[in-house]
Amino acid sequence: MNLIFQVESILKKALEEDLPSGDITTNLLINPDSQARGHILAKEEGVLAGIEIAKLAFETLDSKIDFKILKKDGEKIIPQDILADLKGSAQNILMGERTALNFLQRLSGIASFTKEIVKLTKNSKTRILDTRKTTPGLRLLEKYAVRVGGGLNHRYSLGDGILIKNNHLKFSSIKESINKLKNNAYGKKIEIEIENIAQLKEALKESPDIIMLDNMSLSEIKASLEIINGMAQVEVSGRVNLNDIPKLCKMGVDYISIGALTHSVKSLDLSLKIIKTS
Amino acid sequence: MNLIFQVESILKKALEEDLPSGDITTNLLINPDSQARGHILAKEEGVLAGIEIAKLAFETLDSKIDFKILKKDGEKIIPQDILADLKGSAQNILMGERTALNFLQRLSGIASFTKEIVKLTKNSKTRILDTRKTTPGLRLLEKYAVRVGGGLNHRYSLGDGILIKNNHLKFSSIKESINKLKNNAYGKKIEIEIENIAQLKEALKESPDIIMLDNMSLSEIKASLEIINGMAQVEVSGRVNLNDIPKLCKMGVDYISIGALTHSVKSLDLSLKIIKTS
Amino acid sequence: MNLIFQVESILKKALEEDLPSGDITTNLLINPDSQARGHILAKEEGVLAGIEIAKLAFETLDSKIDFKILKKDGEKIIPQDILADLKGSAQNILMGERTALNFLQRLSGIASFTKEIVKLTKNSKTRILDTRKTTPGLRLLEKYAVRVGGGLNHRYSLGDGILIKNNHLKFSSIKESINKLKNNAYGKKIEIEIENIAQLKEALKESPDIIMLDNMSLSEIKASLEIINGMAQVEVSGRVNLNDIPKLCKMGVDYISIGALTHSVKSLDLSLKIIKTS
Amino acid sequence: MNLIFQVESILKKALEEDLPSGDITTNLLINPDSQARGHILAKEEGVLAGIEIAKLAFETLDSKIDFKILKKDGEKIIPQDILADLKGSAQNILMGERTALNFLQRLSGIASFTKEIVKLTKNSKTRILDTRKTTPGLRLLEKYAVRVGGGLNHRYSLGDGILIKNNHLKFSSIKESINKLKNNAYGKKIEIEIENIAQLKEALKESPDIIMLDNMSLSEIKASLEIINGMAQVEVSGRVNLNDIPKLCKMGVDYISIGALTHSVKSLDLSLKIIKTS
Amino acid sequence: MNLIFQVESILKKALEEDLPSGDITTNLLINPDSQARGHILAKEEGVLAGIEIAKLAFETLDSKIDFKILKKDGEKIIPQDILADLKGSAQNILMGERTALNFLQRLSGIASFTKEIVKLTKNSKTRILDTRKTTPGLRLLEKYAVRVGGGLNHRYSLGDGILIKNNHLKFSSIKESINKLKNNAYGKKIEIEIENIAQLKEALKESPDIIMLDNMSLSEIKASLEIINGMAQVEVSGRVNLNDIPKLCKMGVDYISIGALTHSVKSLDLSLKIIKTS
Amino acid sequence: MNLIFQVESILKKALEEDLPSGDITTNLLINPDSQARGHILAKEEGVLAGIEIAKLAFETLDSKIDFKILKKDGEKIIPQDILADLKGSAQNILMGERTALNFLQRLSGIASFTKEIVKLTKNSKTRILDTRKTTPGLRLLEKYAVRVGGGLNHRYSLGDGILIKNNHLKFSSIKESINKLKNNAYGKKIEIEIENIAQLKEALKESPDIIMLDNMSLSEIKASLEIINGMAQVEVSGRVNLNDIPKLCKMGVDYISIGALTHSVKSLDLSLKIIKTS
Repeated sequence: MNLIFQVESILKKALEEDLPSGDITTNLLINPDSQARGHILAKEEGVLAGIEIAKLAFETLDSKIDFKILKKDGEKIIPQDILADLKGSAQNILMGERTALNFLQRLSGIASFTKEIVKLTKNSKTRILDTRKTTPGLRLLEKYAVRVGGGLNHRYSLGDGILIKNNHLKFSSIKESINKLKNNAYGKKIEIEIENIAQLKEALKESPDIIMLDNMSLSEIKASLEIINGMAQVEVSGRVNLNDIPKLCKMGVDYISIGALTHSVKSLDLSLKIIKTS
Repeated sequence: MNLIFQVESILKKALEEDLPSGDITTNLLINPDSQARGHILAKEEGVLAGIEIAKLAFETLDSKIDFKILKKDGEKIIPQDILADLKGSAQNILMGERTALNFLQRLSGIASFTKEIVKLTKNSKTRILDTRKTTPGLRLLEKYAVRVGGGLNHRYSLGDGILIKNNHLKFSSIKESINKLKNNAYGKKIEIEIENIAQLKEALKESPDIIMLDNMSLSEIKASLEIINGMAQVEVSGRVNLNDIPKLCKMGVDYISIGALTHSVKSLDLSLKIIKTS
Repeated sequence: MNLIFQVESILKKALEEDLPSGDITTNLLINPDSQARGHILAKEEGVLAGIEIAKLAFETLDSKIDFKILKKDGEKIIPQDILADLKGSAQNILMGERTALNFLQRLSGIASFTKEIVKLTKNSKTRILDTRKTTPGLRLLEKYAVRVGGGLNHRYSLGDGILIKNNHLKFSSIKESINKLKNNAYGKKIEIEIENIAQLKEALKESPDIIMLDNMSLSEIKASLEIINGMAQVEVSGRVNLNDIPKLCKMGVDYISIGALTHSVKSLDLSLKIIKTS
Repeated sequence: MNLIFQVESILKKALEEDLPSGDITTNLLINPDSQARGHILAKEEGVLAGIEIAKLAFETLDSKIDFKILKKDGEKIIPQDILADLKGSAQNILMGERTALNFLQRLSGIASFTKEIVKLTKNSKTRILDTRKTTPGLRLLEKYAVRVGGGLNHRYSLGDGILIKNNHLKFSSIKESINKLKNNAYGKKIEIEIENIAQLKEALKESPDIIMLDNMSLSEIKASLEIINGMAQVEVSGRVNLNDIPKLCKMGVDYISIGALTHSVKSLDLSLKIIKTS
Repeated sequence: MNLIFQVESILKKALEEDLPSGDITTNLLINPDSQARGHILAKEEGVLAGIEIAKLAFETLDSKIDFKILKKDGEKIIPQDILADLKGSAQNILMGERTALNFLQRLSGIASFTKEIVKLTKNSKTRILDTRKTTPGLRLLEKYAVRVGGGLNHRYSLGDGILIKNNHLKFSSIKESINKLKNNAYGKKIEIEIENIAQLKEALKESPDIIMLDNMSLSEIKASLEIINGMAQVEVSGRVNLNDIPKLCKMGVDYISIGALTHSVKSLDLSLKIIKTS
Repeated sequence: MNLIFQVESILKKALEEDLPSGDITTNLLINPDSQARGHILAKEEGVLAGIEIAKLAFETLDSKIDFKILKKDGEKIIPQDILADLKGSAQNILMGERTALNFLQRLSGIASFTKEIVKLTKNSKTRILDTRKTTPGLRLLEKYAVRVGGGLNHRYSLGDGILIKNNHLKFSSIKESINKLKNNAYGKKIEIEIENIAQLKEALKESPDIIMLDNMSLSEIKASLEIINGMAQVEVSGRVNLNDIPKLCKMGVDYISIGALTHSVKSLDLSLKIIKTS
């Protein structure tokens, strides 16, 4: 996980959100000089992601907290696993707990769910892609968690990948659109979203690099693949049923993109437990 | 929805995330002078939340976009409902689409889920509470969405509510903790997290305002309520099964807090469709 | 003093204010490699507050400055006391001087004034409260200085405490107001500002937690206390004369809130003296 | 008052400080659609400063609030004067009240105090100067308030004026210091802080533009003025007693700088009163 | 020019840089109520770029300034051309002048130089590319100015385009590098920097999309093109002599990238002249 | 080079610009644990400026990178000189390369060009000044580079120096302007821009400190100098031809200000080369 310098501003914002005026309970109950040692524990099975973010959350609050990472991103974890062992100011450990866990639980939730889906593609060339349906402000982290879970990242932003969508085609034809992009964009493959066979045939004439089959039934996808016949890479998108993934793999689609990887995440259950005080 | 001025920085951050270098597809395919009209459509049933945020997302990108709100926050929506009608620069509408929808789908997802749970408390005094397990950076908006769905907000931050948790009790006894807070905090009720009957009895002697029963079984909760017998308000917390909610209502708990309201949200399906161009 | 991470942005802003284009005198007169040792000295008697902020101000400018704290926040200081001993780049020590002192003198001024007032409440249960009449941008620090001086903090922000003021009562009755808040707010006591006996009686019927007697004469306060008779806590507010404080303590008011603690502060006189150069 | 664009960030910071999680009382008691009209009233005599800042505070919170300025900066105000008449969302008016008043009361306090002191210099050439002992974050506004009160601004920052202080003279002699600055600084007058007659004589040989007599008694100042004899402008600084100002004027000092103008301010008493609701 | 919302922060930063403490000359000489009308004039021939940025600079300072654009980005301008006509507060026009011109002169300098170079490619398929050698903080604007001048943008950032450089090849072989990227990156073409014929042959075996010939002589480029023979697109990079551009076009290179477009810019001479005051 | 704390925000902004979504090539080709050692090399002769900024760029990205400075700012460098030797995470070194070099090349370009011009003033009292025609956002750094090259800084901002320009004289006469400033500004010399002999004579009557002769021919300058005859310092400004500088020196002008020092810079050619990997 690189780009620590960018994550810092998200972490500060999150800490400020939880601590606009300190922690009234902790400040009144615990001596500023008290020290504590705590464990971050798994309470559910899954794939860990974001442990360095959790470390950075505590360090942002208090650079003297000693946070030892015991499980690395990408590792499988099970209930009772100790993910990290931390020591330092008792007040600051309690103040950072929720913020650190909010990041860690969400990112681990994404990695765990991605991993489950990636398993369904086993023994095929099909790759699982994320989308831009990420939580506002957390895209960098969420796309990282998808990679931890074994997924591939679709474009990061509107600027770093070309995708001609139906809304674009209301302004120019498929032919014109693909050719304008071929002549004026540099270094990027050209992908086009297709909703039916007629569009598909029109598009194939202009040799796009990738065809996205959007919201099609399995039989439509099958028919489309036969027409495409290797002339372009194929991405299947839309509300894909998890049961259909093995079938799509068998058909030979190159990519399946799944918005739910990041827009409908179930947090992984973790907790912080104080194990020693002084 | 007040506090527009605070939401602006979150919106800018989200737009920058999606547009660090513009929208290469849109910039090359659509004329800067092209105008468009679009609809935001429901594709799923639920409760709308965040429509003013969606409006503000487009206005932040381009103050000349005319965004007409057709459904208000809190309204029930069904597939094909038109939530908003917007007109303006075609480029900017397409560039704002994803960011606006990412907010709107997430907040509507929270409101819809909260509403479902609140329905389970019908004809009881029991109220549904959220937690601090929110998405980093979005707490203000997510807690707003909970209210839209009929939930009540637990404390916003560590500074604005007192909650003595088990980790605090490793530093001072229940008796000492409650009394320190009574003497040194102003204007706030005192809540304490209880894990078993022994703790409960100890706490009741010090007259806290609210007792949080954490991770207890239904029978333990029942036993606790009998002991408390109206001497404090009661919040049930922990991994509450939705089926148990009506039972908890009948028992007479005052509050049920549910982290999943904000940490495990399913996005509500919405889309933006261009309906006219010029 | 926790929340160092939040103070950093205030410190940076303050340093930028004083150094938008460097320190022309220092840069031209002193060699970048020159080292200096200096003392922060008291020139007036009072209570110290903010010494860690002063340290952080220098460290923000130059992390290599070695700042030794010799007096702690809350200690009484007298003229000629050495509060801190610092060593490092001569240029940076001179550049940070004014900013560090501006914080330290103001916070010590607040703590010293608070301490004086708190002394007037000796041997009583009455507690001194601050208000939200703080300097824009410095609330966290100023409320901290009040605590250093022995005062208690009233609500930090409009979000973390309930106070029904006269302006609110222009929109709903006392009865309606108190009950709406009882039903819809969580974890907070309900306080209401009262300007006369009629309002007081009306309010008491709804059992608020705290009554604020605003701008009343001593005799009105006395009469009010008799009516309240322990049914609510009592805060006296408005332009309280320091001479009246012992009388209010004797009457048994629970709290006296004083805006001047933060809105009309006299800076404590301190200075930085270079004692050695190399 | 120019530089509105710079003040905006201070205003936002101040509003965020007071509204990290909204205004719980106002949100629960007042309908979002309720309108109100209010007056900002003087409760004390003084000089108004910052009325456009107060306007901007409300507009930052809600651009639809209609804020009519009735008294301008620099005008004398007396109790019961209506300074502004504002209309708009009742919720937002109540939420902006404290922040707007905190700015307005502080700046008017500075302007009023400055005015009082400036009056003491009547019929003399002596001008009153402020210092860099301003509140962190508010220098631009506080120096503006000094001008409103009739004072002159000493240097704004360490970069925009040359002042050789005693701490500098520990690194190079008076002669060397003045000459280095003459040769390497552009467009700025050279001022030197003098603590005794010996230093004064040494300095005068190098023809500085301004001599600052620091912490001298009246008789020392008199002796110094005779020695200077018009060869440089003279600033008197240090803990000047207000009673001494007319004497200093008579002696013919050019400038008197007074830190208390900004570091020990008494807020001017003002309030906001709702006069109509709908 | 889209993305106004991103440019705002750069504009604010630039205005703050020039106005940390106002404009002392203007504030003292010109009445705050004075109005002025001014013209932005060309003093040199070139291609205009950034006129909307100049407009936004004035509007950021003062939203009431009326800035009429008379020449659009991309238009050829000659000395004495009036580029814009602006009216409003005299103080604010003078305060915004330098900042607005600093942007406009730099961007027009880039567009003008790009245009000159693009002309050298006339009647060929060769396209001129920029690089990431832009001014820190201004990349979005500088890359826009390159497009205004007729150039094409190479990748915007390290995240949105793949380029295997010599430094990467110290970690893995050409073969391994190209294949890792083919398997793990989505939507991006693969470009590799080549320094000699041996590397070129090795690379061609792995079918990269684009070959960058770095710092090669004309004859080496010619030899390389024969070897490549249409199997990949070809970019020529390094210190290209302007005289060589027509030769490179004739040889059939697809792209020539030129760092000097943005790293060694000559500002276009423009000025603001007040033509009327009131 | 002081003011590191201010440069940090520019560095972060620059790094974010280049790394909004990481470095796709580097992340996929190089192991996060790989270490590298690299050299920053000169490829052109010049004066080095900004080496501490380059160091800080890498440290901002990754505080563990060990960056050894081998040449200091102000030193002459020639091709193949090793300016710095750095070690650390291979990924982070490659990610920081372009940003660090963009700063270093630009600042060294400014210092080198300034040095060349300063040489032309040898054996004269004439000093070379920069202007406010700097790159938006980089003024502090660019003015620093001018000093490294031996130039003097004209005013930093509109607030820290007085310059009456022709546009000001449309609002008040020369006489009135100079006197208003004499009476109301503190600590600053008064400079006036003069376009012809008539203006010059009028100005001299009011004894300004500095006369700026703007856009005059050599013979006009000569005539002006005779009239001024030592009564004020003289700055020559406008499109000064480099060949004329020795002539202006001989005539005895005090200052020559040159906008091109910062507005038309040629980057100095430097590169980063990985010399060892592990």
